[in-house]
Amino acid sequence: MTTHHFDPETFCTTLGAHPPALRVQPGDTVVMQTLDAFGVDRHGVACGERPNPQSGPIWVEDAEPGDALEVTIVRLTPSRERGWTRFPLAPNVVDPERAAQLPDRETADWAIDLAAGTVRLTDPPPALADLVLPIDPMIGCFGVAPAGGEAISTSTPGPHGGNMDWRGFRAGATVWFPVGVPGALFFAGDGHARQGDGEISGTGIEVSMEMELHLDLRKRWPIRWPRGTTAGGAEIFTAGSARPLDQALQHATTEMLDWLAADYGIDTVAASHLMGQTVGYDIGNVYNPAYTVVCRMGVGVIGS
Amino acid sequence: MTTHHFDPETFCTTLGAHPPALRVQPGDTVVMQTLDAFGVDRHGVACGERPNPQSGPIWVEDAEPGDALEVTIVRLTPSRERGWTRFPLAPNVVDPERAAQLPDRETADWAIDLAAGTVRLTDPPPALADLVLPIDPMIGCFGVAPAGGEAISTSTPGPHGGNMDWRGFRAGATVWFPVGVPGALFFAGDGHARQGDGEISGTGIEVSMEMELHLDLRKRWPIRWPRGTTAGGAEIFTAGSARPLDQALQHATTEMLDWLAADYGIDTVAASHLMGQTVGYDIGNVYNPAYTVVCRMGVGVIGS
Amino acid sequence: MTTHHFDPETFCTTLGAHPPALRVQPGDTVVMQTLDAFGVDRHGVACGERPNPQSGPIWVEDAEPGDALEVTIVRLTPSRERGWTRFPLAPNVVDPERAAQLPDRETADWAIDLAAGTVRLTDPPPALADLVLPIDPMIGCFGVAPAGGEAISTSTPGPHGGNMDWRGFRAGATVWFPVGVPGALFFAGDGHARQGDGEISGTGIEVSMEMELHLDLRKRWPIRWPRGTTAGGAEIFTAGSARPLDQALQHATTEMLDWLAADYGIDTVAASHLMGQTVGYDIGNVYNPAYTVVCRMGVGVIGS
Amino acid sequence: MTTHHFDPETFCTTLGAHPPALRVQPGDTVVMQTLDAFGVDRHGVACGERPNPQSGPIWVEDAEPGDALEVTIVRLTPSRERGWTRFPLAPNVVDPERAAQLPDRETADWAIDLAAGTVRLTDPPPALADLVLPIDPMIGCFGVAPAGGEAISTSTPGPHGGNMDWRGFRAGATVWFPVGVPGALFFAGDGHARQGDGEISGTGIEVSMEMELHLDLRKRWPIRWPRGTTAGGAEIFTAGSARPLDQALQHATTEMLDWLAADYGIDTVAASHLMGQTVGYDIGNVYNPAYTVVCRMGVGVIGS
Repeated sequence: MTTHHFDPETFCTTLGAHPPALRVQPGDTVVMQTLDAFGVDRHGVACGERPNPQSGPIWVEDAEPGDALEVTIVRLTPSRERGWTRFPLAPNVVDPERAAQLPDRETADWAIDLAAGTVRLTDPPPALADLVLPIDPMIGCFGVAPAGGEAISTSTPGPHGGNMDWRGFRAGATVWFPVGVPGALFFAGDGHARQGDGEISGTGIEVSMEMELHLDLRKRWPIRWPRGTTAGGAEIFTAGSARPLDQALQHATTEMLDWLAADYGIDTVAASHLMGQTVGYDIGNVYNPAYTVVCRMGVGVIGS
Repeated sequence: MTTHHFDPETFCTTLGAHPPALRVQPGDTVVMQTLDAFGVDRHGVACGERPNPQSGPIWVEDAEPGDALEVTIVRLTPSRERGWTRFPLAPNVVDPERAAQLPDRETADWAIDLAAGTVRLTDPPPALADLVLPIDPMIGCFGVAPAGGEAISTSTPGPHGGNMDWRGFRAGATVWFPVGVPGALFFAGDGHARQGDGEISGTGIEVSMEMELHLDLRKRWPIRWPRGTTAGGAEIFTAGSARPLDQALQHATTEMLDWLAADYGIDTVAASHLMGQTVGYDIGNVYNPAYTVVCRMGVGVIGS
Repeated sequence: MTTHHFDPETFCTTLGAHPPALRVQPGDTVVMQTLDAFGVDRHGVACGERPNPQSGPIWVEDAEPGDALEVTIVRLTPSRERGWTRFPLAPNVVDPERAAQLPDRETADWAIDLAAGTVRLTDPPPALADLVLPIDPMIGCFGVAPAGGEAISTSTPGPHGGNMDWRGFRAGATVWFPVGVPGALFFAGDGHARQGDGEISGTGIEVSMEMELHLDLRKRWPIRWPRGTTAGGAEIFTAGSARPLDQALQHATTEMLDWLAADYGIDTVAASHLMGQTVGYDIGNVYNPAYTVVCRMGVGVIGS
Repeated sequence: MTTHHFDPETFCTTLGAHPPALRVQPGDTVVMQTLDAFGVDRHGVACGERPNPQSGPIWVEDAEPGDALEVTIVRLTPSRERGWTRFPLAPNVVDPERAAQLPDRETADWAIDLAAGTVRLTDPPPALADLVLPIDPMIGCFGVAPAGGEAISTSTPGPHGGNMDWRGFRAGATVWFPVGVPGALFFAGDGHARQGDGEISGTGIEVSMEMELHLDLRKRWPIRWPRGTTAGGAEIFTAGSARPLDQALQHATTEMLDWLAADYGIDTVAASHLMGQTVGYDIGNVYNPAYTVVCRMGVGVIGS
């Protein structure tokens, strides 16, 4: 039950079987420093490369393919007072003929007030002069080394996790990733002070973070896509990633169907009744090379 | 401000410029009887044809193309004690290779207890023996005659509304439809006692209903897709429909961008900041010939 | 075996159950005048409305739902010396970020030389000063009234045919449409002097035409999508329409699988061998509200 | 101008920056042995792992990011007398409700007669008892190590090439790949004795091969997707890969637009005229994790 303080000097832009930067035991906690999406640290210094440089990988003792790595997000603290976003909206989230009318892409700065728990644009357009939003920190990109020898860019999500950009990855949530290689090789980075559904401007409010994460193992639990429980524990969820959104939804839905059958004794017919009348879907991201859809089910209805 | 009681004997399976079955003034209320998705009425009698036979059309005096028809959902009351669903999940919402393993499609009955405000399967599988869910009545299919002389099947949604199957169409919500023909020609039907996101088993809990709807006009308000305010008024929304989900999302997002600019003085750049960091998306349906995505924005952040 | 000369004065912008403009017997030939996509006739006079106004409907005696209407394209003759195209490429056929860099849409004129069998831009950009292309006339939009009471815009294709924009619809091809209503109610229009795959600039070379079509019936042949034989007869084909292209391809492939089983005695396993190693696909259109994919099989390999 | 004979003993299932197995000069020719998609060699011995184990990587002297690797397919010779396919059709290429009716997947053997230039099923179903098809050897999977440190599975295609499965990759074709890492690191494997469009049964006729490839460099030619000239040289082509097919087509179309502008002096407007009225599209594969669409233009019309 050690707590590790992990403040790396090198960072990864792919999730793959890179040499471990830290080794931990199942049950340990890691307090880790992460860079923002462009590689800038808490001091404003550019230390890593785009996109979404990751802190890691972290070797988890005893993790083997067929297990699931359990990551509980204990705390996400922006580690500086300035974040940034890109604008306008991404061309792929508006009608194609409208994309032609979007202005050029630029960067905006946001002031992050941790004491007040708020963010605001430092130089807002007049229409947003009074805009103050609550912070709601989340992890944009985290996951494990994929199976099959792949090394996947931190721009994209997949079965191994990666750049899912779902705002439900906030403090209090627990996530399981399918272990693809010995030691699991966990990575995290790309913190957002907050974000709307879909990351439709191409960014959340990007900021370096101190992330406190509890790492554990669920042995011999062969999952195909990230699974988890939401902050507060009211729901379980699965996260599928692909293009188009339809296929991401198919992955998340199939993973939930499998989960309900294997662990809750709810077969396909019962699951169809239950999911058909109670399921919730979130659009995690609709910007990255693969999109992410999250499928949620209330623990109250599944007898968890 | 007349209240009309509308209990039709004939029903429509397309939304088009059919002869009006009722004529009302803007500001009138209609208490209307609707059939379930297979055409069965409150007495258990088959009166209409599949799919989703509609009560209507209702001519709204003074409605012209370029206006928006305003529909406030005052009350949705299931009008019998039995509803039904189809199962298992639709083959298009699971991975293609998994679709091959789905059992054949069948129909299940649900008991609706209005006094208790609950639904339950009449013959549940053992895993769901104790399942009781709250009712949450919604409209599956409603809208207006499309522009351009089209008559569109009640199986599908589009700019004119139609079979959107979003569970946010519940009592308390207000919806605006783009008027496509003189008199607007409003239709409604396909009530669900409740439904999960996406209508992924192909149905909500299908039931005949008594719907109390307030109809009004917003003159010279040229919208392209259905817009509205959610029950309780905390959010405004737009509803886009197409396949894949990506395109439905593009339509809904573009419509919101246009709305913020025209009515709230929030230009594309400001809207990109605001939507990027606060937008919400719902998957209305992922089953019909066109899918529906709803884009939501909190009225608190847009200065409404 | 009558030959009808059909030169209508009114035109339709939906395919639906409109009053017949001409009545023919199975086996008759129709020599019909059609407008261009904007409604301009052979004299340069605007007679119809956008998009793709159709000549028709033509009632075919004895046609009933469950039959297939057989249309043999005998001859397609542009009926004036000027055609037009739109440019640049449609924003939906290039990468979204590239769509923002496309110039505004404009119209270009083309000279059609029937004697030489060529087309050329009347005011070409320097890079295309010497460009002369062979004409290859085709039908952009034709089909029958849909089943189920629908009236579908001439902008879009579907099971009933419609705006498929496949360049294989040239003289010599035979097409079967699923009869949806009594009399079939056949429509045709939207001739193109030539076109690339996909109609990616949003048009072929649009021109009024004289179309000579032979109409016949195949009784009790319940097809779900347009089928046909290519000019020259070397291949049979099926045409599916939907978005995305993936779904259009699924429709065309499934229709071919059904056809091979029902009429050629080739079951799913044999068809999988055959189609897997010999099938051809064409992208008909990737511009309209629904896209079209054509699935082709050589008659040599299916024992036709 | 050396000719290398390359008969490797180890194989790769990702395209990434692996240690070179062979080093060549630009202009050299490689006669290489490749395994079939399951890793079986010309002697029927399983030597490699699924999927599509590659021979390589081959380091090409002087290749740097920003260059294009030129691969001319000189000869593709199946190196044994038996190939195999999978059947039935893949569930993702038929309508979802039809996928449920497909039989279980199995493997079929094909006899390859190089002298006769034919293939036939060794145990055909009765309907195909007389089926003999011409061989038309092609490369299923080949390409270079991707940029950005990625290692991509041989199951999928991308900007680096990979598992594109287009039947145009036959002898006589020349292909350029964007060099992503020093030395280019070229891989090839997954030969097919023939295949239909789309690889819709999930395989071509899979066989080990002797491939004779001529490797060269085009310095400082920054391309984004594979480009090439077809066998016989009548067309140039670009190959885009993504899901859905719509996006693959966008990539291929945008790459062609860029190519015409940079190398042929044909700007966006002129290219829109030309591509709109003459472009051809092929569906390479509609089975792999990313689909492939090829965009073709006749050299006759572009003044090449």
